[in-house]
Amino acid sequence: MATPNNPKIKKTAWIGIVYGQDLYQAVNYYCLKNKIKNGIVLAIGTLQKTIFSYYNQKERRYFKKLINKPVEIISCIGNISLKDNLPFLHAHISVAGHDGKCFGGHLEKGCVVFACECLIIEFEKQPLARKYDGLTGLNLWSLK
Amino acid sequence: MATPNNPKIKKTAWIGIVYGQDLYQAVNYYCLKNKIKNGIVLAIGTLQKTIFSYYNQKERRYFKKLINKPVEIISCIGNISLKDNLPFLHAHISVAGHDGKCFGGHLEKGCVVFACECLIIEFEKQPLARKYDGLTGLNLWSLK
Amino acid sequence: MATPNNPKIKKTAWIGIVYGQDLYQAVNYYCLKNKIKNGIVLAIGTLQKTIFSYYNQKERRYFKKLINKPVEIISCIGNISLKDNLPFLHAHISVAGHDGKCFGGHLEKGCVVFACECLIIEFEKQPLARKYDGLTGLNLWSLK
Repeated sequence: MATPNNPKIKKTAWIGIVYGQDLYQAVNYYCLKNKIKNGIVLAIGTLQKTIFSYYNQKERRYFKKLINKPVEIISCIGNISLKDNLPFLHAHISVAGHDGKCFGGHLEKGCVVFACECLIIEFEKQPLARKYDGLTGLNLWSLK
Repeated sequence: MATPNNPKIKKTAWIGIVYGQDLYQAVNYYCLKNKIKNGIVLAIGTLQKTIFSYYNQKERRYFKKLINKPVEIISCIGNISLKDNLPFLHAHISVAGHDGKCFGGHLEKGCVVFACECLIIEFEKQPLARKYDGLTGLNLWSLK
Repeated sequence: MATPNNPKIKKTAWIGIVYGQDLYQAVNYYCLKNKIKNGIVLAIGTLQKTIFSYYNQKERRYFKKLINKPVEIISCIGNISLKDNLPFLHAHISVAGHDGKCFGGHLEKGCVVFACECLIIEFEKQPLARKYDGLTGLNLWSLK
């Protein structure tokens, strides 16, 4: 386990992501614009179209899945850290249609919002930075 | 995207929601009683009976679904804002029975608790207020 | 509903749980080592193997379920309180494989991490303590 850092809360922001916006890009853009380097994201809402992915641990790449119908966002949990010195959102999402069955994965660009309510909590100090990790093929935190 | 406000943490409360209580009403009542106008809700636990709903984006109304058996609450993520000047809970929930399959939607009144552990974090200043939005048919935040 | 306590944020920690670690034990060990008596846990990531359980409300015992293949962690929401005077993690998890179908339950020991990003927020004062509750057969919070 990497050594954890110890930040306190810096600020919090509620974002109403509106009809037609891209969920990932709206949140990521907010973080870029507001220079959020370390934070948590929680969202619920409703999507017109959903794209998430699954990381194949052997092949070391993501496979995307499209759900091309209206769904509820059941949960969307993510974090913000630095990748190549820029704020970067990593989030996982689950969604459900009219039958309630939940589907989910790694949040990708391309999710079209119907309505979405998102909370970002930013922490002070010590930005987390991602670095390529040879063991997993992923960009993981390097906490120094 | 609406302009976000910028509150800090005001207080946090853990609530043990007990056997037989209605999950939605217990949390909403707590927020009414404690005048929480802006906050986040996270809960896990076990339910005797579950009711959630799916928003049909074309027909612009919610369709309810009942799960009439004991389930685990896998996730329950919500927020508190004002509707008609009163604290109002909006939450989404997912649950699973003995086979682990997850079902979820918009949390409705009528979920009967077996045991539930709920965190509320309240933010200072600027209450969020809901207003009817003609585009979606939903009561969305108006952040001014 | 039990009387809620009213703590403020004490500290927050991001933990990068690494390849091969046991998710439950890694988080629980961190809380033991850092004497976290009252907190919330949120995590996303990828697992090599998953074990969660379902609480049978009639028989009053947990039944475990094993998912012995790589999955995404869609959500992992938990809390930290005291059990027998020691920090104790209670969390629920949902996961999904390549088809995106979500499965979840009560997080058990034995989940093998591929990569996992976990946030712990610790609250000041008033540790929550668990006590056996005869009505449910569970160890629930006693808030005094």
